[in-house]
Amino acid sequence: MPFAKSLTGIHVVAPLPFKPAALNGLSERMLVSHHDNNYGGAVKNLNRVEQELSQINSDTPPFVVSGLRQSELTFRNSKTLHEAYFGNLGGSGKRSGGIDKALSEAYGTATRWEEHFRATGKGLGGGSGWALLELELATGELRTTWSGHHTQTLATAVPLLVLDMYEHAYQIDFAAAADRYIDAFFANINWDEVNHRLERAVAAAKALHG
Amino acid sequence: MPFAKSLTGIHVVAPLPFKPAALNGLSERMLVSHHDNNYGGAVKNLNRVEQELSQINSDTPPFVVSGLRQSELTFRNSKTLHEAYFGNLGGSGKRSGGIDKALSEAYGTATRWEEHFRATGKGLGGGSGWALLELELATGELRTTWSGHHTQTLATAVPLLVLDMYEHAYQIDFAAAADRYIDAFFANINWDEVNHRLERAVAAAKALHG
Amino acid sequence: MPFAKSLTGIHVVAPLPFKPAALNGLSERMLVSHHDNNYGGAVKNLNRVEQELSQINSDTPPFVVSGLRQSELTFRNSKTLHEAYFGNLGGSGKRSGGIDKALSEAYGTATRWEEHFRATGKGLGGGSGWALLELELATGELRTTWSGHHTQTLATAVPLLVLDMYEHAYQIDFAAAADRYIDAFFANINWDEVNHRLERAVAAAKALHG
Amino acid sequence: MPFAKSLTGIHVVAPLPFKPAALNGLSERMLVSHHDNNYGGAVKNLNRVEQELSQINSDTPPFVVSGLRQSELTFRNSKTLHEAYFGNLGGSGKRSGGIDKALSEAYGTATRWEEHFRATGKGLGGGSGWALLELELATGELRTTWSGHHTQTLATAVPLLVLDMYEHAYQIDFAAAADRYIDAFFANINWDEVNHRLERAVAAAKALHG
Repeated sequence: MPFAKSLTGIHVVAPLPFKPAALNGLSERMLVSHHDNNYGGAVKNLNRVEQELSQINSDTPPFVVSGLRQSELTFRNSKTLHEAYFGNLGGSGKRSGGIDKALSEAYGTATRWEEHFRATGKGLGGGSGWALLELELATGELRTTWSGHHTQTLATAVPLLVLDMYEHAYQIDFAAAADRYIDAFFANINWDEVNHRLERAVAAAKALHG
Repeated sequence: MPFAKSLTGIHVVAPLPFKPAALNGLSERMLVSHHDNNYGGAVKNLNRVEQELSQINSDTPPFVVSGLRQSELTFRNSKTLHEAYFGNLGGSGKRSGGIDKALSEAYGTATRWEEHFRATGKGLGGGSGWALLELELATGELRTTWSGHHTQTLATAVPLLVLDMYEHAYQIDFAAAADRYIDAFFANINWDEVNHRLERAVAAAKALHG
Repeated sequence: MPFAKSLTGIHVVAPLPFKPAALNGLSERMLVSHHDNNYGGAVKNLNRVEQELSQINSDTPPFVVSGLRQSELTFRNSKTLHEAYFGNLGGSGKRSGGIDKALSEAYGTATRWEEHFRATGKGLGGGSGWALLELELATGELRTTWSGHHTQTLATAVPLLVLDMYEHAYQIDFAAAADRYIDAFFANINWDEVNHRLERAVAAAKALHG
Repeated sequence: MPFAKSLTGIHVVAPLPFKPAALNGLSERMLVSHHDNNYGGAVKNLNRVEQELSQINSDTPPFVVSGLRQSELTFRNSKTLHEAYFGNLGGSGKRSGGIDKALSEAYGTATRWEEHFRATGKGLGGGSGWALLELELATGELRTTWSGHHTQTLATAVPLLVLDMYEHAYQIDFAAAADRYIDAFFANINWDEVNHRLERAVAAAKALHG
């Protein structure tokens, strides 16, 4: 394949993949603000920071390069994780299929995994971050990832289920009640999408090993 | 495939994939200390933290869960990135093959990419972190990633070239002269390994898209 | 003076120093949730983490000590900064007195300082952090501090004006409109309190130099 | 007092306050490299970043302001903490005077405090950070602070004893043996200086309360 040009600054905002008024217990006002301002803002900023980075030269102070690169990682991951987050909402919340079996194999029971995942999310309440279920491609392990900032993710991994724990994801509807937000998140998970991601990620893991 | 059990705490230390006395300008003493203590320590700590995590229950304070999960991400990524770092050393430093062509397509010239990569590494001098060349699987973009801590990496990506900028990677041989370390790193890159990773990562990217 | 016992875990929640219904453009619901849940939660967690820390011994894994200590710094600073934040609200927003003169001396004009302070706050929109005006005791400099997390503050300094940029400080009333929140914050600053802090901080700076 | 102009970029490097060849178990080569390159580099970078910050205006992207402010905090605290670190070396390592009594009052015994302080330092081995003993001015508490990065310190506090755990502080002499470095650090502490700082910090705490 021909490789994409780097630092072009032409990333675009994807629309919400569901009707925001249709979710249970997550308001349209909050979902639209989250999508348009936080996700949309990240895409706009990613484009601006890529344009700045394309201009650096040997006179640019190293701390300026570092600052721009850190911003690039922030906005790039914010884009990726937000798209995966919205993409795994809009469902019935009923877990089934391959992911259910996979979680049982990895964690003993899928219920035990859910305890881990909820505890990881709850520990992030009142601050910023993400709770992620990821397939680590190099090992085939299903890992539950804590992330305290957009920049923090598991290396060599594909996110399967993404829970946004930034306060913009819940304060409008739940104020500080992060627990109730996590309940609402689980009630709206699109497990079909998660199963689709798992299938594709397993194929990628196999391809990586050749 | 059957999924690996989670939180088993049975990760093992991989040996150095080259004779440490054979590298040019990177001393055996430093490479062995780096491998045995920093990488080896991360594996040992990953095992301990996984065992602690396997015991959490509903009485565990959320901040304790968060602390353990942050440690898990630290040691898990430290293991992954150190293995990739040692794996891309031991070569001739002569860039050729698919990666050379890919970098030209993405950055205009491979030389321009090298400027970006070196500047990213240099900006990390005196602190902690990694400079990475990664294939972002979802987009097929070749990205140069700044990481100021083991926990920080690009989401949905496979590392192709990994430069350790923690001071344990260079202070013994170069004191604070991070520039000279980056020169020595480039002189020892195993580009055959990088080309192999690129090939496999491209296959994984295709498989991910189905 | 006799020094306080360490790690006692007996910190208490201070009440709001103003009637929350009386502020202009910051709702009672948001202020009370912020105080009771985010600030109050930090105090409760500080007490728990101090009790955990008081029990560590030579068998405690170093990463557990590090995790607890990082939590302690998080909650300790969260307590300090939240108290200073609520303490500098409830006023008329009219800047006068010593602080006005001091800012002019340091920044050319107080207006120029306000531009710096607002830009620092705005840059934190959509994430976590604080914008602070501090007196650096060792140098007597008035510094505008960016902080992206409770743990990040200027060393050897006393906060004079504290702006909470965590999203729990504004999402309920303003959704993602961080700019409008900063306007409302400025309209409610208690500059008498800031002047009082400046006076005391200057006395402390002099005492530090002996 | 007249307040210093802000963002002047004219900070200067202080010389080492001891003969670097005279310390026991910490080499002149390492101490001089640490002072000239890491501390000296921070001062130089602080000046550059202040000059960049003095130029920002309403067209500067918020993420650029944030990047510069984060760099400013990094280099400003690096300057402060490095000066305090070198300033509390060059002594006999024999603890006595007011600090010994104060630590006993706060921690039960000064030995218990030393366990806490050493464990905090040890937990930072292999990465970046500081272990600090600080007087929290607002409360008069003697706190042991974990810091994983220059930007992280206790709010409203004066550092009394400062241990640099960045790897540039020990890798040259000790490779990864952070424990042996901490031993050498303790053998060279200038407790007279720590006692002097305690006296001044107590005076500042009293002055702060008016």
